[in-house]
Amino acid sequence: MKLYGYWRSSAAYRVRIALNLKQLSAEHISVHLVNNGGEQNSPSFHQLNPQHLVPAFVDSGEQGELTLSQSLAIIEYLEEKYPQSSLLPSHIEDRAIVRSMAQAIACEIHPLDNLRVLQYLVKEMGVSEADKMRWYHHWIHVGFSALEVQLSQYSGRFCFGDTPSLADICLIPQVYNAKRFNLDLDAYPNIVRIWHECQQLAAFANAAPEQQHDAS
Amino acid sequence: MKLYGYWRSSAAYRVRIALNLKQLSAEHISVHLVNNGGEQNSPSFHQLNPQHLVPAFVDSGEQGELTLSQSLAIIEYLEEKYPQSSLLPSHIEDRAIVRSMAQAIACEIHPLDNLRVLQYLVKEMGVSEADKMRWYHHWIHVGFSALEVQLSQYSGRFCFGDTPSLADICLIPQVYNAKRFNLDLDAYPNIVRIWHECQQLAAFANAAPEQQHDAS
Repeated sequence: MKLYGYWRSSAAYRVRIALNLKQLSAEHISVHLVNNGGEQNSPSFHQLNPQHLVPAFVDSGEQGELTLSQSLAIIEYLEEKYPQSSLLPSHIEDRAIVRSMAQAIACEIHPLDNLRVLQYLVKEMGVSEADKMRWYHHWIHVGFSALEVQLSQYSGRFCFGDTPSLADICLIPQVYNAKRFNLDLDAYPNIVRIWHECQQLAAFANAAPEQQHDAS
Repeated sequence: MKLYGYWRSSAAYRVRIALNLKQLSAEHISVHLVNNGGEQNSPSFHQLNPQHLVPAFVDSGEQGELTLSQSLAIIEYLEEKYPQSSLLPSHIEDRAIVRSMAQAIACEIHPLDNLRVLQYLVKEMGVSEADKMRWYHHWIHVGFSALEVQLSQYSGRFCFGDTPSLADICLIPQVYNAKRFNLDLDAYPNIVRIWHECQQLAAFANAAPEQQHDAS
């Protein structure tokens, strides 16, 4: 398996955690999102992912080489192909709750604070750097406020009960981003508590951006 | 089952198509996204979904009443609970491709063009109405250009082969939005072709915004 990612990419960080939780190894190939106008925009990367986003994931499948984009699709693939250390609960209703929490981050927070979106805000919409940061913080606050309500109902040690799941896989990279940009997390006690719990696990700690070979 | 939605909400539209494809009926409850400052922001709706977004979905589960948010989580729940007329292929690799296409829309296009985001752009970022439309079109173009490449590889009558799937469920509401805002679709022949195919199916046609009881 090959994972094309970048140390600071939240979506690649999610896949790294999933691989670690399942004790799967992959070759990690760095795609620098800033240098040379962003290596994700190169013609060679276009062949891997016409969306020009990391992560891209390659596995040798039954029908030849399988190339996948979209972190949650990659993680659901890993979950189905390698069911050990499941990332979703076994009960249908519980699985739905976990997916709902994961998507509350992956569909409502992260897409708005993605690098290319921030770049477009400044370069094309004429938004100032200060307003860009206000935008960035705003969508995390909106998303975390709602997630905190769900966590008060469903969390145990982790987002859903006492087992790390797809929800934690999405949450931890988002908290990393929030911390990186000095967002005050005091209003989110469950999120902060779960962040600390996850840091205790090697699967999460070893997936952290600063632990990657391309960190700078 | 109850579906809290709004006729023009793309995410509710997705769930309507999924219910129709599976021949499931639900009570449709309208949450007006514009009137009264947006009914999704009311305290009573907060109880259903603290994210203040439609759709919200309620089913009587084994552990009492189950309330779900996030359209893709709702649809995966329907898929697992009511496997008839499957919305995902049976092979693991094929499922991954379908989810990847669905998320290319649900995680990369729609979140950026959502109502609350457009409102925030104008009211808080000071973006003009003209630039707001440029933003809106831009993210659809970026997303559709990449999707068109995937479709040229995987599509048959529908996004993946000859059976409608989760990918079509996400695509058709996004095309509806593009058409509503006069986006030129000439560069996307596969998308336009699949749009026409889907309109032939009652499950899609009956889920269209104009067919809903709250359309105005």
